[in-house]
Amino acid sequence: MIPTTINFVDKFNLVRAHWSPKIIAQMNDYQFKIAKIQGEFVWHSHSETDEAFIVIHGRMQIELRETRLHLEAGEMCVIPKGLEHKPVTTQECHILLIEPAGTINTGDTDGEMTITETDWI
Amino acid sequence: MIPTTINFVDKFNLVRAHWSPKIIAQMNDYQFKIAKIQGEFVWHSHSETDEAFIVIHGRMQIELRETRLHLEAGEMCVIPKGLEHKPVTTQECHILLIEPAGTINTGDTDGEMTITETDWI
Repeated sequence: MIPTTINFVDKFNLVRAHWSPKIIAQMNDYQFKIAKIQGEFVWHSHSETDEAFIVIHGRMQIELRETRLHLEAGEMCVIPKGLEHKPVTTQECHILLIEPAGTINTGDTDGEMTITETDWI
Repeated sequence: MIPTTINFVDKFNLVRAHWSPKIIAQMNDYQFKIAKIQGEFVWHSHSETDEAFIVIHGRMQIELRETRLHLEAGEMCVIPKGLEHKPVTTQECHILLIEPAGTINTGDTDGEMTITETDWI
């Protein structure tokens, strides 16, 4: 299969809902997902995997039980597996997530924000 | 371990040589590496893994045997395992690579641009 160039802005223009990740690329068994986020997510952790966040536009915080990470466009972090975290942002923020295919957005905390099937965009 | 915020510009400011990837983060057994590139790399492929490129600053091309990908800041691509490719850029470009730990920059093509041990930065 011939690879293609993926433009983040073009992909974000196709996303409407907040907290609804969409897959834009796959590398081995890992996926690149974009999400528009605003407001507060839920406390959760992923017992099986680390999770990488890259901020493409705007700024966000990731609350941890002991501290809080501040991230803005051009910054990233990796949340280790098992570490409880809660993404929060007052203004809309555009993020890129990298994690194994099949990773559930709310990790071990099922609830109304849980998305069990993530679509490609 | 408490995660930290990683700023791409701060990390690129620590890199001097072209075509010399440095590790800035690890997610499970995958690594995030930054590289400043300028000029022509060598034709190579990775027989064991896909490889993701994200352009952070500037623009580059990835030559394939059948076509050529154009990538600029805010764009990415995934080169499938086994596909021959050659990164090229006339002006300095700053890229983020995501690939399994231990992936060699020149893949199956050993040569003077090969870096067998990649440092953290």
